[in-house]
Amino acid sequence: MHARQPALAEPVRFFSLANGLDVVVVSDRRAPVVTHMVWYRNGSADDPAGKSGIAHFLEHLMFKGTAKWPAGEFSKIVAGYGGQENAFTSYDYTAYFQRVPKEHLRAMMDYEADRMTGLSFDESVVGPERDVVLEERRMRVDADPASQLGEEFSAALFFHHPYGTPIIGWEHEIERLNRDDAFAYYQRFYTPENAILVVAGDTDAEEVRRLAEETYGRIAARGEAPVRNRPSEPDPRASRRVQLNDPRVQQPSLRRGWLTPTYTSGTRGEVLALELVSEILGGGTTSRLYRRLCVEQELAAGANAYFMGSMVDRAALQISASPRPGVEMAAMEAGLDAALADFLRDGPTELELARARTRLVAETVFARDNQSSLARIFGSSLAVGETVEDVLEWPQRIEAVTREAVIEAARRYLRPDRSVTGLLLPA
Amino acid sequence: MHARQPALAEPVRFFSLANGLDVVVVSDRRAPVVTHMVWYRNGSADDPAGKSGIAHFLEHLMFKGTAKWPAGEFSKIVAGYGGQENAFTSYDYTAYFQRVPKEHLRAMMDYEADRMTGLSFDESVVGPERDVVLEERRMRVDADPASQLGEEFSAALFFHHPYGTPIIGWEHEIERLNRDDAFAYYQRFYTPENAILVVAGDTDAEEVRRLAEETYGRIAARGEAPVRNRPSEPDPRASRRVQLNDPRVQQPSLRRGWLTPTYTSGTRGEVLALELVSEILGGGTTSRLYRRLCVEQELAAGANAYFMGSMVDRAALQISASPRPGVEMAAMEAGLDAALADFLRDGPTELELARARTRLVAETVFARDNQSSLARIFGSSLAVGETVEDVLEWPQRIEAVTREAVIEAARRYLRPDRSVTGLLLPA
Repeated sequence: MHARQPALAEPVRFFSLANGLDVVVVSDRRAPVVTHMVWYRNGSADDPAGKSGIAHFLEHLMFKGTAKWPAGEFSKIVAGYGGQENAFTSYDYTAYFQRVPKEHLRAMMDYEADRMTGLSFDESVVGPERDVVLEERRMRVDADPASQLGEEFSAALFFHHPYGTPIIGWEHEIERLNRDDAFAYYQRFYTPENAILVVAGDTDAEEVRRLAEETYGRIAARGEAPVRNRPSEPDPRASRRVQLNDPRVQQPSLRRGWLTPTYTSGTRGEVLALELVSEILGGGTTSRLYRRLCVEQELAAGANAYFMGSMVDRAALQISASPRPGVEMAAMEAGLDAALADFLRDGPTELELARARTRLVAETVFARDNQSSLARIFGSSLAVGETVEDVLEWPQRIEAVTREAVIEAARRYLRPDRSVTGLLLPA
Repeated sequence: MHARQPALAEPVRFFSLANGLDVVVVSDRRAPVVTHMVWYRNGSADDPAGKSGIAHFLEHLMFKGTAKWPAGEFSKIVAGYGGQENAFTSYDYTAYFQRVPKEHLRAMMDYEADRMTGLSFDESVVGPERDVVLEERRMRVDADPASQLGEEFSAALFFHHPYGTPIIGWEHEIERLNRDDAFAYYQRFYTPENAILVVAGDTDAEEVRRLAEETYGRIAARGEAPVRNRPSEPDPRASRRVQLNDPRVQQPSLRRGWLTPTYTSGTRGEVLALELVSEILGGGTTSRLYRRLCVEQELAAGANAYFMGSMVDRAALQISASPRPGVEMAAMEAGLDAALADFLRDGPTELELARARTRLVAETVFARDNQSSLARIFGSSLAVGETVEDVLEWPQRIEAVTREAVIEAARRYLRPDRSVTGLLLPA
């Protein structure tokens, strides 16, 4: 599910600077603050073969200073303004953001423009920062059996496409990342043509354009945007299972996923229908799986579904469930198999469909209340190749999906012989 | 298992030409014929990301002619000599060979030297030959559920390393291979520094050196050998299963594999021990699994094991079994699990170990009787980074493996939580 934005008080504005930088402005006058984000159209799935983790490693290095702003200096300034800053790396993009009082917008631009081209890359910071990343991986993955299963599950979903590789990278490849790798990656991807500036908050397109031209506008164009160069995934032909047993597991759980198309790689109608399939199956306590497995059959302690159609190449509809204490995993899985088979045979009821539509559209309204999520929706959608219009029209498009389309999409993609199942169990 | 060569009538000779071409000569005077092979140290695992199948595609194009020998001309000549020729692509190497009366050795060298650098690459042959490869893939894979499961199984064994990609390539990537891809690949890998000439037969090192210098010796050196550039596989953390149901399946079957080190990537003693583990478990009708599952428990119609430690990066010990008619797959698998657990707990008997050693060493003796297999053993071993000495000393090394080493290697690598299981079942 991807929360979207219905009509806003002022029109969303989109334009590009002469050097190719795309700009989105979402005016939001409720408080005198702005959210400033820069999105690069490269994520972990663009890591060169054998150099997994480099997108995320570079995200770390972006905080290690330029000639103008030595490491830590700017963070102190943002904190001094009472602001917040952060960054994140995903499969398809890397983003940097600050939320500050509106009068400091230009300073944020000045800073992001500076580190788009002026990163120091001192050899002295690269090694220690790599150790920080390795420690982050140990904390997140090695200490957590669920994360380990998650990595194995993703790798089983994507045998060939780099979405099967962890965003943070495989440990043995992180260990070998060096300054030259990071610098070459930075030179390739950190360019105005590859970036999207998103400003949401108490400002307007004219002010943003003026400030952006004074800051980002001084960066020389490279001539063209870098090209994503990724292997694509063959269609799955066999059902797949991964099972992790670990003495640290307190709560056993099952996850199941099916590969699907995305808004930019597939037919839009199918992907919209899959959003509804996911919501009907596992959206909250009125969903099909929750009612059936948790309430009626008392097999599961929880059941959820997840779908994110805004990816570049492929998406996956995923469900998860945990058996109740005293229920065997096999019994819960049999109940889940039966519930899915019934859904594929009969489709949703009209009530289920109406409820799912309402919930998805309502979430886009709730998302509007949060300036950061507003900026994130536009940034993430544009970074994968969608348009401002796609974001704005999403609620009406969801409203228009028919029951037949939902049934057809479910039957096409949620077949048992295309499924990947992950089991997390005690030793 | 890798059949090796015990002591031969004349010493095996190894030398290099000035341009970097390695040469192995194995004199074999039993008949007035020679086997002439050229091995390139690049295979499907060296296919660039997103261009799977290019090593194999180039193998096809190598028969499409040069300025000197238009397509088909040389094949006619070899046939006219009463000779044989062929080629094959594997994960780590690509090889071309001819077997001809000894007086034609120089003509073979002249031809192979010519197509090492002079391939035509007419646009007119590239498209049709790609269609030939696509048809080959359809015949081999799409028409055969066991091949489809094999691809899924390999992809589940190797989540990250290109050994998980089919040698022939994924269909959607083969479709996009073009002349420029093939030419760049050829330029990168078809060089004297990257090749190994193996001549076995009624000749000697002096003659081979003289002829090789007159033919291959005229190819200019490139300065250095191309570098293999491959992602490596993270250690598996969860057991994995793939299941393919297909109405065409007449005989259900199970295969199971575990990742292992190789002679060149791991500790030699461990890999030698794994050769024995494989032979003890599944080498013929006196093996542990055959006796237990097929004879004593009457659960399986067949049981085998396979291990090939002569790979560059990783190997896999694999077993396979088929249930008897009327026996459920689950019952056979439970029997297999128990047999493996017993083996890991108790290890082999002294008799099992002695029998496996004898069988492995005997196979190297049988291999000597076939001039082509003799040449192949040296070519494949050298292509993955082993030495002539490694090949010659293999039988003695196998004889020296202790029971403790066998037990230790089995317990380290054949753990259930590292296993990948593939099931082929009717619809």
